[in-house]
Amino acid sequence: MSARDPLDAVVVGGGVIGLSIGWRAACSGLAVAVIDPTPGHGSTWAAAGMLGPVGEAHFGEDRLALLNVAAARQWPAFARDLEEASNRAIGYVASGTVLAAMDASDRRVIDDVLTFQTDLGLSPRRLSSRECRELEPLLSPGVVGGAEFPDDHQVDNRLIVDALLAASDRSGVTVIIDEVSAVNSKDGRVTGVTLRNGGTLDSGAVVVAAGCWSGGLGGLPHQVIPPVRPVKGLTLRVRASKGTPVLTRIVRGLVHGKSCYLVPREDGTVVIGATMEEKGFDLTVQVGSVHDLLRDARAVIPAIDEYELIETTTGLRPGSPDNAPLIGRTSMEGLFMATGHYRNGILLAPVTADAVVSLLDGKGVSDVIGSFGPDRFDSQQVGPPSGPVGVGT
Amino acid sequence: MSARDPLDAVVVGGGVIGLSIGWRAACSGLAVAVIDPTPGHGSTWAAAGMLGPVGEAHFGEDRLALLNVAAARQWPAFARDLEEASNRAIGYVASGTVLAAMDASDRRVIDDVLTFQTDLGLSPRRLSSRECRELEPLLSPGVVGGAEFPDDHQVDNRLIVDALLAASDRSGVTVIIDEVSAVNSKDGRVTGVTLRNGGTLDSGAVVVAAGCWSGGLGGLPHQVIPPVRPVKGLTLRVRASKGTPVLTRIVRGLVHGKSCYLVPREDGTVVIGATMEEKGFDLTVQVGSVHDLLRDARAVIPAIDEYELIETTTGLRPGSPDNAPLIGRTSMEGLFMATGHYRNGILLAPVTADAVVSLLDGKGVSDVIGSFGPDRFDSQQVGPPSGPVGVGT
Repeated sequence: MSARDPLDAVVVGGGVIGLSIGWRAACSGLAVAVIDPTPGHGSTWAAAGMLGPVGEAHFGEDRLALLNVAAARQWPAFARDLEEASNRAIGYVASGTVLAAMDASDRRVIDDVLTFQTDLGLSPRRLSSRECRELEPLLSPGVVGGAEFPDDHQVDNRLIVDALLAASDRSGVTVIIDEVSAVNSKDGRVTGVTLRNGGTLDSGAVVVAAGCWSGGLGGLPHQVIPPVRPVKGLTLRVRASKGTPVLTRIVRGLVHGKSCYLVPREDGTVVIGATMEEKGFDLTVQVGSVHDLLRDARAVIPAIDEYELIETTTGLRPGSPDNAPLIGRTSMEGLFMATGHYRNGILLAPVTADAVVSLLDGKGVSDVIGSFGPDRFDSQQVGPPSGPVGVGT
Repeated sequence: MSARDPLDAVVVGGGVIGLSIGWRAACSGLAVAVIDPTPGHGSTWAAAGMLGPVGEAHFGEDRLALLNVAAARQWPAFARDLEEASNRAIGYVASGTVLAAMDASDRRVIDDVLTFQTDLGLSPRRLSSRECRELEPLLSPGVVGGAEFPDDHQVDNRLIVDALLAASDRSGVTVIIDEVSAVNSKDGRVTGVTLRNGGTLDSGAVVVAAGCWSGGLGGLPHQVIPPVRPVKGLTLRVRASKGTPVLTRIVRGLVHGKSCYLVPREDGTVVIGATMEEKGFDLTVQVGSVHDLLRDARAVIPAIDEYELIETTTGLRPGSPDNAPLIGRTSMEGLFMATGHYRNGILLAPVTADAVVSLLDGKGVSDVIGSFGPDRFDSQQVGPPSGPVGVGT
């Protein structure tokens, strides 16, 4: 297959990152194709859709925290644009998060998070055990204290997929259900891609947005292969039975050193998540992971015992050596990266899409995103990733 | 709809009981129809297929224990007949059961079960903690002692459904995918049934084998409505990952007063079950039940932590006031019951089918099954059911 008209850009991967880039690129007048065997059904599908610059920020990741804060500020406008362009709701809710500690050690972690977030210019609020339960009556009586993060918000990760596909269609993006087997190049310059079925697409620009699979793409010279790895995440979807009390806001729990989260949707579903495992490209839903997640979630919100378990889903987040994304040009002319978003793919989709479209247009990017160029790994010896110290997912 | 030829019998319900009756009746020359909206997909589908006269027997249920023992003895021949008649394997395995106790109190329960079973003429064997782990190396080091029940065996409950449907087809049973809305009668004598779609079937004999739904059948005079109730059971299906150690035999665990079982299939699946709840006609897979079952099962077999969770299934067992089945004639001429089998539907299917076919032929039944006639509830004031004291499911 060869496109009838030459493309301005091919986006490899149709998760929330690739679809956002495709849509925004088309809006700015570019002829663009997004290629994915199952658009929106990778880690985007397994996500919970929390947009929490506060809850997600970690110690030792100040630059990333600033990027997350900037990304969160951009979300309300992005949500409005996307709902208008797609004529679909995406479940954007600005309800804030309650973070609850189950023991004294967990409460000390919250103290540290409060200090860190206040230094970032955010406005978290410390809560007593009683205040936690006033804010969210379903919290366990065992909660010893917590905090409120009023700036957190959420979006329905699956409605976003529908909306991005609809907006892409309306704005003229070509979404191709296939897999890119290789990036093609000539004399060190990108010329397009080869598809799994053998066809090719010609394009002077290729954006790699294939999440944890980005490193396995064929045709990339060694020095531009992105150092991404799969980090398994598990989410459970549960639903309140008739007559069962309903969770009213996002709850994050710190349970004896482990963290979990519960995100209530407007349709009555609650998304529960936590587990992070590094076991390669393995999507198995493991007995031990499901048990531990249920154990921690019901310790925080005992009422979920009566809820119905409706789904167990795993996804592979794209981790990078410093847990930050790779966004920008590579040393290969015409090749761009938009991968390695780890826990923050949905939060960072708007800023990533705008940055990539700006680069495709031949313009620059802001300082806050400029330091996340993929070239930061070119010269340095890559060390082990720094694990999360604060409240991770 | 009216059958072209008059039927000798209509069986209401196509679970393991109804399908077995239909097949055996056709084998004895009767023209029979089995009616079910989803044959084999009720509690038969959710079952684990343990055929354990030992593990299933309870104190205070001596008559039922004797029936179970007789039923278990009949299974090998029934399995052979069914595999031959259907030309399908049903996963019959005579591997015995290990019962493992997690604390001293659980071990005392095992002592009582050993005494009871020995009195019944069975041959259980007491095991030390070490002997338990020699027999099944995946047992937790925390097991304090146990017992082996060499007479237990298992069958694949889902392969049985396939085999019974195939054998029914070959032997001329008419399996109708529909629901019986009412039993029809004239002058106190059964004349057939009315189907949900409005059609009727004429037959001088109707066998009610509709499990926990048997009591809701239309057209039954008050005095013959069977006193059955739904008792929810939960089974999980898990599978060993590549390279993970495999369970070699049926394991029952007594975990701090609660019991669970793990039944390994030849295809690598393990069926895990335990929960019994009486919450009406509710098939919800509840978070708390899944959690508790995983917690107890991994306490007994820690290796399942690495297994993949592939399915959560609930079924509604038909409980009766004395936890024993209702098998036999009713006071309404031409109306027979084969319901209330509770935990023992698969185990009791062969003896139930033979008894019902004998009655349809105008003959009698043996003493061991004769005391389970539905008329035992006619005159007496029905008291509360006696709960399981031993090792229940």
